[in-house]
Amino acid sequence: MLQRPSNDAPSRLIRDCRFGEGVVVGPFTNLYECEIGPGSQVGPFTEIQAGVEIGAGCKIQSHSFICSGVLIGDGVFVGHGVVFVNDKAPRATNPDGSLQGQDDWQLLPITVEPTATIGSGALILGGVTIGRGAMIGAGAIVAADVPAGATIRGEPARLR
Amino acid sequence: MLQRPSNDAPSRLIRDCRFGEGVVVGPFTNLYECEIGPGSQVGPFTEIQAGVEIGAGCKIQSHSFICSGVLIGDGVFVGHGVVFVNDKAPRATNPDGSLQGQDDWQLLPITVEPTATIGSGALILGGVTIGRGAMIGAGAIVAADVPAGATIRGEPARLR
Amino acid sequence: MLQRPSNDAPSRLIRDCRFGEGVVVGPFTNLYECEIGPGSQVGPFTEIQAGVEIGAGCKIQSHSFICSGVLIGDGVFVGHGVVFVNDKAPRATNPDGSLQGQDDWQLLPITVEPTATIGSGALILGGVTIGRGAMIGAGAIVAADVPAGATIRGEPARLR
Repeated sequence: MLQRPSNDAPSRLIRDCRFGEGVVVGPFTNLYECEIGPGSQVGPFTEIQAGVEIGAGCKIQSHSFICSGVLIGDGVFVGHGVVFVNDKAPRATNPDGSLQGQDDWQLLPITVEPTATIGSGALILGGVTIGRGAMIGAGAIVAADVPAGATIRGEPARLR
Repeated sequence: MLQRPSNDAPSRLIRDCRFGEGVVVGPFTNLYECEIGPGSQVGPFTEIQAGVEIGAGCKIQSHSFICSGVLIGDGVFVGHGVVFVNDKAPRATNPDGSLQGQDDWQLLPITVEPTATIGSGALILGGVTIGRGAMIGAGAIVAADVPAGATIRGEPARLR
Repeated sequence: MLQRPSNDAPSRLIRDCRFGEGVVVGPFTNLYECEIGPGSQVGPFTEIQAGVEIGAGCKIQSHSFICSGVLIGDGVFVGHGVVFVNDKAPRATNPDGSLQGQDDWQLLPITVEPTATIGSGALILGGVTIGRGAMIGAGAIVAADVPAGATIRGEPARLR
């Protein structure tokens, strides 16, 4: 594994990450303590947090947020503006008013199996597994496991 | 109040803001003419506009947009990719074709009372008040007042 | 047409674009091979891709993503965090495991006619036309053509 992406781009913050061969990371990105497999691409305005593992040949598109606890297999497509959530009931503070720290909440892991697609603007809630090759539609809120090969649509708005 | 956050981070644009003790502001942020209370944290890729007031001990997560007219109490959690909206029917131009300016639309204020949580990807529309301790689910579109302590869920997408 | 916006701002990446007189582009922006008409404004944390054409007097707000294949007429308002989608079933890789390239998928164009408004957080799916003066509500997922002057609401979350 390499310590830098294969390309250069301005305005990247990359700290303690491991990259496979040929990984391309766009500008305006904030990556730390994560691992990205060979040939994967990461778009601009993305944050990838500590402990995230992304497989080979993935595309992570712009404006996406991948939080700690997320494991992404090979060949996964993550669209633009996708947000992963790892906390069921986040709070800023504890009942005593102190700011919550890392020990004050339970991290809910998320697994995205190989070749799945997550459409733009989708929200993936903590604790779910998205099965191999599943297709999550743009804007879907995924709150339960998705079987391999399944298709989930977002809810299109209706004309009034 | 201080004129700079307590931490340092690259690629921040901070103009005419006031910060309480211990405020932490992430990289890739655009803050202007706003006020942020002691101990609060602001994530990367956020914009906070003029006139916004944020209390003490808040967490404002990455990719969120907090527009003019928003008042946020103490201990509030704002998730990733949350967007506040302060204009009911925005238009780029006036009927005569001129670009709309500050006097051509009505700002609708939003109040978020202390210890509320706004889940990732939620949209908060202008004119609403979110009550103390309320929990807004990820991806919810909040178009009406939310009572103190209430829980609002986003609508999970269904399997087809 | 000009090669630079009329204003200056830090942390902009602008490559091979054409700008009309008076165009204002915010900081933290990634624009390439696109054309933006006179008097239009582009907010921070936006990406505008190759081939996009934006008319005169438009407002493109922060955190929006405008992909290849999008044509936007004069006087259009694009809210914060709006995402356009140009691929019906995106995949990271081909069946043989190779990373998809530009020839492996079909670009679906999107047209936004003059004076339309797209509310914050809306998703506009590939292949649709949004008619003149239409009003797309915040958070709407637009999966079909919208007639001129029509109003589309997002689906507000319900109180439980």
